[in-house]
Amino acid sequence: MALTALRWREDRLELLDQRLLPAQSRWLTCHSADDVAGAIRDMAVRGAPAIGISAAYGVVLAARALGAAATAATLTPALDTLAASRPTAVNLFWALARMQRIAATQQGATLIQALTNEALAIHDEDRRMNHRLAAFGLPLLPEGGRIYTHCNTGALATGGHGTALGVLRSAWTAGRIRGVIAGETRPWMQGSRLTSWELMQEGVPVTLVTDNSAGHLMQRGEVQAVIVGADRITANGDTANKIGTYGLAVLARHHGIPFYVAAPLSTIDPALPDGSSIVIEERDASEVRQIQGTPIAPAEVPVQNPAFDVTPAALITAIITEHGVIHAPDTANMAAYLAN
Amino acid sequence: MALTALRWREDRLELLDQRLLPAQSRWLTCHSADDVAGAIRDMAVRGAPAIGISAAYGVVLAARALGAAATAATLTPALDTLAASRPTAVNLFWALARMQRIAATQQGATLIQALTNEALAIHDEDRRMNHRLAAFGLPLLPEGGRIYTHCNTGALATGGHGTALGVLRSAWTAGRIRGVIAGETRPWMQGSRLTSWELMQEGVPVTLVTDNSAGHLMQRGEVQAVIVGADRITANGDTANKIGTYGLAVLARHHGIPFYVAAPLSTIDPALPDGSSIVIEERDASEVRQIQGTPIAPAEVPVQNPAFDVTPAALITAIITEHGVIHAPDTANMAAYLAN
Repeated sequence: MALTALRWREDRLELLDQRLLPAQSRWLTCHSADDVAGAIRDMAVRGAPAIGISAAYGVVLAARALGAAATAATLTPALDTLAASRPTAVNLFWALARMQRIAATQQGATLIQALTNEALAIHDEDRRMNHRLAAFGLPLLPEGGRIYTHCNTGALATGGHGTALGVLRSAWTAGRIRGVIAGETRPWMQGSRLTSWELMQEGVPVTLVTDNSAGHLMQRGEVQAVIVGADRITANGDTANKIGTYGLAVLARHHGIPFYVAAPLSTIDPALPDGSSIVIEERDASEVRQIQGTPIAPAEVPVQNPAFDVTPAALITAIITEHGVIHAPDTANMAAYLAN
Repeated sequence: MALTALRWREDRLELLDQRLLPAQSRWLTCHSADDVAGAIRDMAVRGAPAIGISAAYGVVLAARALGAAATAATLTPALDTLAASRPTAVNLFWALARMQRIAATQQGATLIQALTNEALAIHDEDRRMNHRLAAFGLPLLPEGGRIYTHCNTGALATGGHGTALGVLRSAWTAGRIRGVIAGETRPWMQGSRLTSWELMQEGVPVTLVTDNSAGHLMQRGEVQAVIVGADRITANGDTANKIGTYGLAVLARHHGIPFYVAAPLSTIDPALPDGSSIVIEERDASEVRQIQGTPIAPAEVPVQNPAFDVTPAALITAIITEHGVIHAPDTANMAAYLAN
């Protein structure tokens, strides 16, 4: 049975609480859109695709609470609350827009059923899409290589299988790569807590390192490619992703190592011309001052804690989607791809 | 009263236990060379200059234990134990070589007194040297800039004042810089636990960030220079320093930001032609799997934990020592400087 972090139970959404992994596997139950928005904001669920899917189910929960009164208008507060939960990942807004389109033409019980079907479709499409994406990404990876990844882009971050980690999973199963190096990904430790846990569960060889080790390993020839996910990709291919991604892209370029971004088409936001207009979420100082509640710095030390950074398209070897590969992404290549 | 982490008490060495900072300020007492070697190995004391000073006092403790039997020959086991405590910082071997030279010509009570004087001299020279080094480094820093530093190179890492952090301290006091950005420096968190604590004690404006944030801040124009210390500098200027330093140097070069190394002359090891021959210490996996004893990863996940990396001289704008500045370090520039 494939690993999953999202379970839809008709009247509730169950989320594998990613704040507690790997120490505890505890499921959090969301009964309302507010519950879902809170789970997204507090990172019980994270990963751009998983956030989008959860938000879609959140809209269903709001509609169910409204019952016969459910309409596009009465759903607006719930849609707003969900949209405000996190600012950077575009899949959230994309999923909510899909739900909103459904709401525009129906109401009451019919609407609830239609929204449920749409959320289930978003969830199911994501799972299938990740497998298609992995098939496109697999042949790009250097044979017998050790591949470096950042953050968590696996089953826990998506509807299942994963984006960048889905490529790595498929590549390992196909015997193409030698193993995965997971950067721990401070401050939230998605690499140590989630990625290494996911890969160990499936027997994929993984080595955990501090984010500080990436340059050293590349310098020693121990990394053959880097692959990461994305939270938002602009019209020119600039990519917002977990803080630290940009530094990895600069290091990969310096060492002549390919740098891949794996993300579903829904991550591309053609309304933004380039990365300069992406809102970068600044998260709480406590994420840097403490780890899992343990203080590691003076309590009052000033902190900057950007959660994402933007990698210019020029540093990206290719963007891998469920519909194919965009090599050397720039405005022209992106537009040509999106036109198909 | 200036911050200090080393107190010599004639029959014992007291070390401010850096594993417990900033939560607790507890002094660890070393009564023997073995105690000192253990404190170095377990990082109760760390920082290349502080390790060298501690080792020198360790030799004194060994000589005192031998009493009338103290000779170059009887001191050998203690010298070997101290030399084996950590492999990368050359100041350790440099300090032990100074002590060994003293031991070559005397014995018994005379030797104990001579060794005590030599250890006190090493300690005192380091303190004074750091102030001279800071005076050379200060004018290099961009006026009104925010300067990024890595690891801890302050009073806690030296006999007092600090190397890279000494430059920053002096530059702040002189009104030259706007503030310091401290990278937290996983896995050991010298930046969050020690550097930010040291700077806050003295009112120097410091902002703590995850190591992953460095690239993003440089991209946004928020960093005007990088300054770090060194554990070993080879004949061509290649510099071994805390893991993550190399990545910062690549990022600084990519953004056209100056990258400075501040270290006493004793850090230069002219016997090594370049960085490829530097032994890089690999530390225990628990440093990556846990933080302050709290598990943050699967207990059995494979780990690579290199404690240092090597920055090629070509990425270093200048090396700042207590005798002056080596601009654009390479074999010729280094040799010319050392010849003076």
